[in-house]
Amino acid sequence: MADKEREGEENQQLPVVLQLLPIRVMETAGDRYSNKFRFLKAWESSMPTELFLTTHAQSIKALFCSGYTPVPANILRCLPSLQCIVTTSAGLNHIDLAECRRRGIAIANSGDCFSDDAADYSVGLLLDVLRRISPADRYVRQGLWPTKGNFPLGSRLGGKRVGIVGLGRIGYEVAKRLVAFGCNISYYSRKMKSSVAFPYYSDVHDLAVNSDVLVICCAWTKETHHIINRDVLLALGEKGVIINVGRGSLIDEKELIQCLMQGEIGGAGLDVFENEPNVPKELRALDNVVLSPHRAVHTQESNSSLHDLLIANLEAFFSNKPLVSEVEDE
Amino acid sequence: MADKEREGEENQQLPVVLQLLPIRVMETAGDRYSNKFRFLKAWESSMPTELFLTTHAQSIKALFCSGYTPVPANILRCLPSLQCIVTTSAGLNHIDLAECRRRGIAIANSGDCFSDDAADYSVGLLLDVLRRISPADRYVRQGLWPTKGNFPLGSRLGGKRVGIVGLGRIGYEVAKRLVAFGCNISYYSRKMKSSVAFPYYSDVHDLAVNSDVLVICCAWTKETHHIINRDVLLALGEKGVIINVGRGSLIDEKELIQCLMQGEIGGAGLDVFENEPNVPKELRALDNVVLSPHRAVHTQESNSSLHDLLIANLEAFFSNKPLVSEVEDE
Repeated sequence: MADKEREGEENQQLPVVLQLLPIRVMETAGDRYSNKFRFLKAWESSMPTELFLTTHAQSIKALFCSGYTPVPANILRCLPSLQCIVTTSAGLNHIDLAECRRRGIAIANSGDCFSDDAADYSVGLLLDVLRRISPADRYVRQGLWPTKGNFPLGSRLGGKRVGIVGLGRIGYEVAKRLVAFGCNISYYSRKMKSSVAFPYYSDVHDLAVNSDVLVICCAWTKETHHIINRDVLLALGEKGVIINVGRGSLIDEKELIQCLMQGEIGGAGLDVFENEPNVPKELRALDNVVLSPHRAVHTQESNSSLHDLLIANLEAFFSNKPLVSEVEDE
Repeated sequence: MADKEREGEENQQLPVVLQLLPIRVMETAGDRYSNKFRFLKAWESSMPTELFLTTHAQSIKALFCSGYTPVPANILRCLPSLQCIVTTSAGLNHIDLAECRRRGIAIANSGDCFSDDAADYSVGLLLDVLRRISPADRYVRQGLWPTKGNFPLGSRLGGKRVGIVGLGRIGYEVAKRLVAFGCNISYYSRKMKSSVAFPYYSDVHDLAVNSDVLVICCAWTKETHHIINRDVLLALGEKGVIINVGRGSLIDEKELIQCLMQGEIGGAGLDVFENEPNVPKELRALDNVVLSPHRAVHTQESNSSLHDLLIANLEAFFSNKPLVSEVEDE
């Protein structure tokens, strides 16, 4: 029997995992999965998706997806045997959670893999905006230093009042770091956290009034869509800085652009946008913003530990063990 | 008597302070000094400097200068009444210290004004180099995200072994911040510090061998000139990152450029250069460096507290009180 055939037969023994769309983070790590699981790749089939799903319905107990893969109720309805979804993302806004809850489908996400890197990046964007590091780098590269002289002064991080919108894992790690820089932290979240001593605001607008900086790191849900609107931006004020490592649609991007162009807020560090990978050209022309292509959570290290975690979740599921990073129902 | 004349006469009563060259940081703050001191501006005189100094020698007890003002022995010899030098800089490499020591001339520097901002900026440059924030910003601005896709991954700050070259005020503040990011700190300085528990290396090369990152924040002296040479850079290795917020000539810049271009080290964040404001065009073309026009210590806030401190030093001197930020002789 040829190697290829033997491989094919052995592969047939592996647990089946459904993928609806390609997952970017898998591009460089496929080998780590291929001897453990047999992926059914819906997008590679010539059949319409729902027919493909219905055809394989009985064998599909696990679904593997990214944050860019919509998992709506009509897809879930085609998969009566589905018991587990493993998503490469921290956020779950792409999944119909109500339907999963009703069906008792367990969900595992990226857990803590991204928190440190996202927090680091938030601090990096904030330092960049306040101290003008990226524009200073452009200034030197363009050869302007000898001809135009001193680059304009930035503003000190220490002493700034930083309001964190969403004190989850990432928000907490941001706070921990900024304390070491001498910042004064307060936060907004749905509920006050008994585990931290930072001042709590039950209203984002009130937090903005009392902050020099807002760091947005909450989940994007129906409730948090455009949580940063024009009123909040104006409350932050003309020297205020906003950092977003959550999701683009947490901020009303059109209003943000207006505020930045009119000098109604001071600056912004943005890793996420409403219509990624398209970034409005008005933003790309501004000097008081730092723009980043959704890289806050991605490093060589986080990707490696992400794959460890995702594989551990799938293996746990197929061994009837508890998922490693199961998302608790709230 | 006209206002102008009265002002002129009143001005004659003020304590005399010599300036040899213009001081950039004074450009926006002259008013804060002008009703307290009468500056003798050597560069505005049509006389040769030494003649100007000799002419005013008896009245000159205090000299006010920046780090860009050389104060060599031949200048000091023209000023037999000089008792005090106040410099806007942290470093003293522009002053003939041996001559000052011999004469008992007291020196006050910028004290602690710059430590926090320099430490913040070091962390900002390090995050920028590791996480590729400035190149990512260029990528988005150039509109490459939609066409070229995912931006290459950076590397995590947490867990990195950071070697600090010079654990003075700035170095200590850098260490404090990086501990909050989960870095492992060690340091080189002339003497081991009994006040900190970080591992100490008495040799920079050994420190580099055991570090992923070097942060250079020591004073530039004869002994530290090119302390970062080719051997140290090679010891840091091909993934190693170097951050310099000290002085350009602490690093052998030609060798650094070679190492960066050949991939013998991973990247660099440079706020200072050997021939400022001229930055070699080879550096300006590299993507693995972040370049900054000597802004690490300068913010609106540090400049304001610097002027408070400089004025307090001059006032203390003319009131026969101890200088506020006198540099202790070592």
